[in-house]
Amino acid sequence: MADLATQPAATTSAETAATPDLLARFLNVRDLSRAWSALLSAEDQMVQSCSEASPVKWHLAHTTWFFDTFLLREFQPAYQAFNSDFIWLFNSYYKALGDHPEKSLRASFSRPSLEQVLDYRTFVNQNISALLQTLDTFPPKTAREITSRIEIGLHHEQQHQELIATDIKHALFTNPLHPNLRPLPGIPPAPHKHAADWISFPSGLASFGHAPDGDSAFAFDNESPRHLQYVAEFELASSLVTVRDYLAFINDGGYTKSNLWLSDGWDTITAEGWQAPLYWRKAGNGHAAEWEIFTLHGFLPLADLLDTPVCHVSYYEAEAYARWCGHRLPTEFEWESAAAAHFDANCAGFLTPHSLKFGFLHPTAHASLFGGVWQWTQSAYLPYPGYQPLAGALGEYNGKFMSGQMILRGGSLVTPSGHIRATYRNFFQPQTRWQFSGIRLARDPAGVSSNPETSRPRT
Amino acid sequence: MADLATQPAATTSAETAATPDLLARFLNVRDLSRAWSALLSAEDQMVQSCSEASPVKWHLAHTTWFFDTFLLREFQPAYQAFNSDFIWLFNSYYKALGDHPEKSLRASFSRPSLEQVLDYRTFVNQNISALLQTLDTFPPKTAREITSRIEIGLHHEQQHQELIATDIKHALFTNPLHPNLRPLPGIPPAPHKHAADWISFPSGLASFGHAPDGDSAFAFDNESPRHLQYVAEFELASSLVTVRDYLAFINDGGYTKSNLWLSDGWDTITAEGWQAPLYWRKAGNGHAAEWEIFTLHGFLPLADLLDTPVCHVSYYEAEAYARWCGHRLPTEFEWESAAAAHFDANCAGFLTPHSLKFGFLHPTAHASLFGGVWQWTQSAYLPYPGYQPLAGALGEYNGKFMSGQMILRGGSLVTPSGHIRATYRNFFQPQTRWQFSGIRLARDPAGVSSNPETSRPRT
Amino acid sequence: MADLATQPAATTSAETAATPDLLARFLNVRDLSRAWSALLSAEDQMVQSCSEASPVKWHLAHTTWFFDTFLLREFQPAYQAFNSDFIWLFNSYYKALGDHPEKSLRASFSRPSLEQVLDYRTFVNQNISALLQTLDTFPPKTAREITSRIEIGLHHEQQHQELIATDIKHALFTNPLHPNLRPLPGIPPAPHKHAADWISFPSGLASFGHAPDGDSAFAFDNESPRHLQYVAEFELASSLVTVRDYLAFINDGGYTKSNLWLSDGWDTITAEGWQAPLYWRKAGNGHAAEWEIFTLHGFLPLADLLDTPVCHVSYYEAEAYARWCGHRLPTEFEWESAAAAHFDANCAGFLTPHSLKFGFLHPTAHASLFGGVWQWTQSAYLPYPGYQPLAGALGEYNGKFMSGQMILRGGSLVTPSGHIRATYRNFFQPQTRWQFSGIRLARDPAGVSSNPETSRPRT
Amino acid sequence: MADLATQPAATTSAETAATPDLLARFLNVRDLSRAWSALLSAEDQMVQSCSEASPVKWHLAHTTWFFDTFLLREFQPAYQAFNSDFIWLFNSYYKALGDHPEKSLRASFSRPSLEQVLDYRTFVNQNISALLQTLDTFPPKTAREITSRIEIGLHHEQQHQELIATDIKHALFTNPLHPNLRPLPGIPPAPHKHAADWISFPSGLASFGHAPDGDSAFAFDNESPRHLQYVAEFELASSLVTVRDYLAFINDGGYTKSNLWLSDGWDTITAEGWQAPLYWRKAGNGHAAEWEIFTLHGFLPLADLLDTPVCHVSYYEAEAYARWCGHRLPTEFEWESAAAAHFDANCAGFLTPHSLKFGFLHPTAHASLFGGVWQWTQSAYLPYPGYQPLAGALGEYNGKFMSGQMILRGGSLVTPSGHIRATYRNFFQPQTRWQFSGIRLARDPAGVSSNPETSRPRT
Repeated sequence: MADLATQPAATTSAETAATPDLLARFLNVRDLSRAWSALLSAEDQMVQSCSEASPVKWHLAHTTWFFDTFLLREFQPAYQAFNSDFIWLFNSYYKALGDHPEKSLRASFSRPSLEQVLDYRTFVNQNISALLQTLDTFPPKTAREITSRIEIGLHHEQQHQELIATDIKHALFTNPLHPNLRPLPGIPPAPHKHAADWISFPSGLASFGHAPDGDSAFAFDNESPRHLQYVAEFELASSLVTVRDYLAFINDGGYTKSNLWLSDGWDTITAEGWQAPLYWRKAGNGHAAEWEIFTLHGFLPLADLLDTPVCHVSYYEAEAYARWCGHRLPTEFEWESAAAAHFDANCAGFLTPHSLKFGFLHPTAHASLFGGVWQWTQSAYLPYPGYQPLAGALGEYNGKFMSGQMILRGGSLVTPSGHIRATYRNFFQPQTRWQFSGIRLARDPAGVSSNPETSRPRT
Repeated sequence: MADLATQPAATTSAETAATPDLLARFLNVRDLSRAWSALLSAEDQMVQSCSEASPVKWHLAHTTWFFDTFLLREFQPAYQAFNSDFIWLFNSYYKALGDHPEKSLRASFSRPSLEQVLDYRTFVNQNISALLQTLDTFPPKTAREITSRIEIGLHHEQQHQELIATDIKHALFTNPLHPNLRPLPGIPPAPHKHAADWISFPSGLASFGHAPDGDSAFAFDNESPRHLQYVAEFELASSLVTVRDYLAFINDGGYTKSNLWLSDGWDTITAEGWQAPLYWRKAGNGHAAEWEIFTLHGFLPLADLLDTPVCHVSYYEAEAYARWCGHRLPTEFEWESAAAAHFDANCAGFLTPHSLKFGFLHPTAHASLFGGVWQWTQSAYLPYPGYQPLAGALGEYNGKFMSGQMILRGGSLVTPSGHIRATYRNFFQPQTRWQFSGIRLARDPAGVSSNPETSRPRT
Repeated sequence: MADLATQPAATTSAETAATPDLLARFLNVRDLSRAWSALLSAEDQMVQSCSEASPVKWHLAHTTWFFDTFLLREFQPAYQAFNSDFIWLFNSYYKALGDHPEKSLRASFSRPSLEQVLDYRTFVNQNISALLQTLDTFPPKTAREITSRIEIGLHHEQQHQELIATDIKHALFTNPLHPNLRPLPGIPPAPHKHAADWISFPSGLASFGHAPDGDSAFAFDNESPRHLQYVAEFELASSLVTVRDYLAFINDGGYTKSNLWLSDGWDTITAEGWQAPLYWRKAGNGHAAEWEIFTLHGFLPLADLLDTPVCHVSYYEAEAYARWCGHRLPTEFEWESAAAAHFDANCAGFLTPHSLKFGFLHPTAHASLFGGVWQWTQSAYLPYPGYQPLAGALGEYNGKFMSGQMILRGGSLVTPSGHIRATYRNFFQPQTRWQFSGIRLARDPAGVSSNPETSRPRT
Repeated sequence: MADLATQPAATTSAETAATPDLLARFLNVRDLSRAWSALLSAEDQMVQSCSEASPVKWHLAHTTWFFDTFLLREFQPAYQAFNSDFIWLFNSYYKALGDHPEKSLRASFSRPSLEQVLDYRTFVNQNISALLQTLDTFPPKTAREITSRIEIGLHHEQQHQELIATDIKHALFTNPLHPNLRPLPGIPPAPHKHAADWISFPSGLASFGHAPDGDSAFAFDNESPRHLQYVAEFELASSLVTVRDYLAFINDGGYTKSNLWLSDGWDTITAEGWQAPLYWRKAGNGHAAEWEIFTLHGFLPLADLLDTPVCHVSYYEAEAYARWCGHRLPTEFEWESAAAAHFDANCAGFLTPHSLKFGFLHPTAHASLFGGVWQWTQSAYLPYPGYQPLAGALGEYNGKFMSGQMILRGGSLVTPSGHIRATYRNFFQPQTRWQFSGIRLARDPAGVSSNPETSRPRT
């Protein structure tokens, strides 16, 4: 299979001078999806191993469909589509665009072949490039709409790049042979061990959400409007909860004590038989030393991962763990307060997707708010005051999912570089575990829970 | 069957002088449950017609179990329980107290008989009365704990009285004969027609939640601690959405337009085949005039109920209706702001449970925030900052349900008098419809949605 | 509750002289249902504790509905129905008669009350009596159709009497208090211990099914036509498999060895977690001596029931047990061959329903083919060659169930006297266990399985 | 893709002289599986589109596993397995061999790749060839066991070749693009129109099942022992029910009349919403002329297929159709009687799998009992008297499925040549439709049903 090192640098030729940055970025983002694909066989890219996941080939096609549908069919004069069936075949959930296949059918898409899908990608890339190069022939308002939609399309594709990573991880794990994506490249990186500190934040009324003139030019609609929230004094842990920490919870019977769990959480772990995070298994006779954790390098001994952040936990598990500690999860506004204060300093350490090429495909613990693992908050995914979805079918992108889900903040090892910001609102249902989701603790200033029965020092 | 008019007045004899008010209230509340029972046969009180509901007989026993378990077994010296099995048989969900029967088994409780359950009620009433009369023999701290738990027990029983009403309504509806609880007592009350006004509220930082020294002496733990929230300027409708209003939504194809619905909502109405609120049915050939609505008086023509508040809608339906109008649901803090401002004036009109004896057993529309129907808010049921559940098994009362549910505020026709306050947080899953749940709209100050596609005047 | 001893003897007055036998039998059969009801409270008769079962009150009404629908409404001039809703309310599954409530709704039938249902019974009894007394006013063919339908109705009611017993047993068991129907009347009867003999039957071509001029005047349509079958030489066990026998199978790991089971059977016991027959539970630490079995007298120690026939096993369990023994189940024709040969002798010992009044409500083992427990055969429930269902709605009685079910032969402790014959074909799905179903073994003449791995002597 | 025409003729070199016939047949059968594979991409061979089906790649590996497991690992001295994981990975359901993956996981087997599976096939082919060439070095009894198991393995592979056809048909149909396996090769063959005749068969006692010294050397264990059955006089239709015939049933409201259906059948078509056989769809506004039927050549107009046999019907549909006609399905013994009488004459017309290369991949109607479509019988799949499964793990092949399934007789268009005989017992659950299953009618000698309501002439 192709190595990511061989992928061409993004084109920055003279023809794209009009919007060189956007075109370069477009090609760069598009190349990364293709690089993921190159790590896998066509057969690998057919697997859909759980109801949340999609085949990699589908991700490649759907992200292309996005540009096809929302850009080329609307703005490209005399556009001849690559394949007229693809408009409905690769629609994910946009009901305003008409019928679309049920998600579960994606595993039956042996046709079009991977080769055809890659041709589709090339075709759309060429047409978007052409569109960008003729951008000055459009009225200014239209040109702005075009670049705005391309921006959305790129961020959309970056979201799917993360899903490619999580979905193929699940696919490889589901295969009874448990193959790895690539062998372990030498010794795992030494953990960045940090003492667990509590960082204090004062109370106050502050603005949250995307500032149009802020650091990040782009934001999804659900990050707006910027608005005031009052946040009381709180403390946030300087590092993520580790495998070592979480193992203590398991060994203390955390999964057997109903008083630690939300009612829905208890029902879930009972019905599903969960006794550890997703991807953990016990080899041998059950000693802690014999846990193994499935990574993109295959199963590794837990003992080698003790100081990496615990990962692939549901909201229920994150919340129960926090209660066991006598602490709690942060709200999304607490998290964003901290991120706003610390963004510059810590982002230096963020693992870029170049780690995909060289690095260790399992999160490492470090002090950054970003990277590593997504962090469950105790905030439900709800609209900000005054929220308005985008007009038209794109309004279905985020708004219609605002029930039954919880907010995660931060980013993960497999979140593409450039797809990260302090106001980003990730969201999943509370039982979801196949994402790279972990835990950062918060607490109230007194530092200990007022309920002596559940309070205990965090180790 | 016994008429509620024949129930004895609450005992207020000299023996209860030590805590006469609490004892009188205790007996009054307990009598009301019994009065509900007296409207029904023992067979009626066996029915459990949906997974959310319980048999009335079970409610009678469980509310008694609460006093048995949390008061008499703990504080009554040399207490001899009425029946030693009841401690686990009538436990609902308190896992700290040990095993309990699955909820679905309650329909098999032909034994104990209703007669035995009523004897159990009398037995516990007598023992609680005795306990209260000897309250001054306990150390002051213990005495305070006792009265505090009795207060909780009374509010607990009032919650179950509302459930008795909702569950028996569902039970009668499920019976293919659709019997009524009692015949329609003459003409339904003339609707209190109010023009739909928008009342403006200013922005500001304010305190929310139960104030220990406030108007209401009692509150559940989930109403605390009182804390600051910033609320932006908003407007709240002066009256509830009516059957007439909601019918316009149906007739406009509200249930067929996916763009009006949250994704989970659309999936729910599609899977369930919902085309109207619970308890609506079409008689005849489908004209609007021929809708009928099931009430505790049996099926009534919708035409006679046009100006009553729409009722038995899920959160999904409330939210979709609001979007169709170009408006939205209030947050729980917006609602509480309004309630704090208007509590005194409007509460005068609140329908007390005496309506059970004399009145019309279907909500009537009026301007009050309280009574009529519970009002869905767009706030998820989450802990207030600094929230601490009660110690021990009682800590399971509210806290463990803080995921996956939405807040309702206000109260309904069948909420007992005295179980109503501005800070009360009712909560149900977003698909729930068997409660008396309705809609009050909110909007942002501009008064119209900025999305012209979905904005329309409210009729 | 009323004691069965107090029930009036069947009316045999002069007015019934025209068809005195049928009328007397009609009243006798009808009285027995009522006697069952008299053992129970109205609340007991509301319980529907599994999808196979119905509330006792429903059985009382439905058996009455049968006479109402198929006799009175068709043949009684100027008949005024007791209640016009009952025609659809108590229809079980006759689609030719129009819509009927889903079976699961029967638990919501608090109305009509038990009292009203008993009045309905009286009303229909009176009308059927009147009809019988005027039978000679009908044309002969009509009169024959009337008496034929009354016969069917009586056998129908006897089937439901058995279901009343099985359904109330399940209802009492489901109640977490596990009440008994009546206390154990002294010591269980001493077992009729018989050495397990094998009785040989020769091969031959013989007739099977109901002979119109045979011993039994009545038979259901599915017992016809009488037809030829060739049956090879076989041996049949002289007694039923006992609790002692079956316990050896359990103790030998019968429920853990997949090679003993049909594939569907293994899937069923795995999915359901079965480790013993229905109604068995282990009290204490798991020693065999500590098994208990739920009976209509409550839980009894297995040790007291060792020589009673094993009961409440599914076809899968019966079949696996037989394989474990190296034997097999009989076909329905083998069973009928034996019954035809031995009917007279053994039926003398059949436990009549008078045992209900005086006896031990748990089967006792004896050599009879009948009584005790129904015996699973290895024959599927299929039409006999030339089978024709009855005309009209009554054609739905038996014929439409001829797929996916297995034949049981014999009868059980709770099969009413007079509802037993050598050609009777009982049928249930192979996973069914709530009936009084047990095991009688058969084998091929060689006497041992030719597969040495699975063959073992029967103890 | 490779054309089947290019596949090498079966090797018949001098090295295979010892058992030239078996070796030649082995290589021929193995080649046919590979030929199916060559029609498809590796991605196509990943699809598992319903719970009954498996990916084609899995079939290729599992049929190879059979020889690997039951031959090479047992009889080949010093055998080095191709891959030690394959022993459990490609086990389908043989529990005596230990754990195996759940069937639903087969869609995740992107590894091993198709290329590796084809290498596995070559490896095992070479080893089996070598084994056969050294057969005379084994003791005679062992040599006979080896050739016997190879025979079973070949018939096993032929069964899976049929499943490859049915599973890939379902996979292509499930893909929303509905691709064809190959385009329609010109005009469909003209139908062999036969007037529908009834052929009479006399009553009598006869032997059924495999005769060891009969026409076919091989038979599965479930076809034995040969035994006596009495069959009454009957008539069998000379041709299969056609699309034209079945369309009349649909147009007469066959799917809307509950009285035509078994109870389980009615429940199934109601729950599943069936209104026609699998693979039928209505294009346009619903006129009969606009039905289309999906074939391995894609969707074809029903109008072009009117005289082909109706196919992909469940037992329930076959049984209901027969009732609608006033006729019935044959028993398996009636069918076998007819086949024994007519085998030689009709088999001449059987479509061999060479049709795969040149022919029309949809059944054509003809008078033969074999080929075309499998024919549902009204016999349940039960053991013959004296049936003994094979010893060891191979005993799980057939015996453990003897509950809940119905017998089909005959063979279909995609049944490999040489895998057809008069005693063959195919079996599926009554709701199964993805096989090439159709209908041949039987009737009792009188020729018409005695129930005038349901009797009608067959058109």
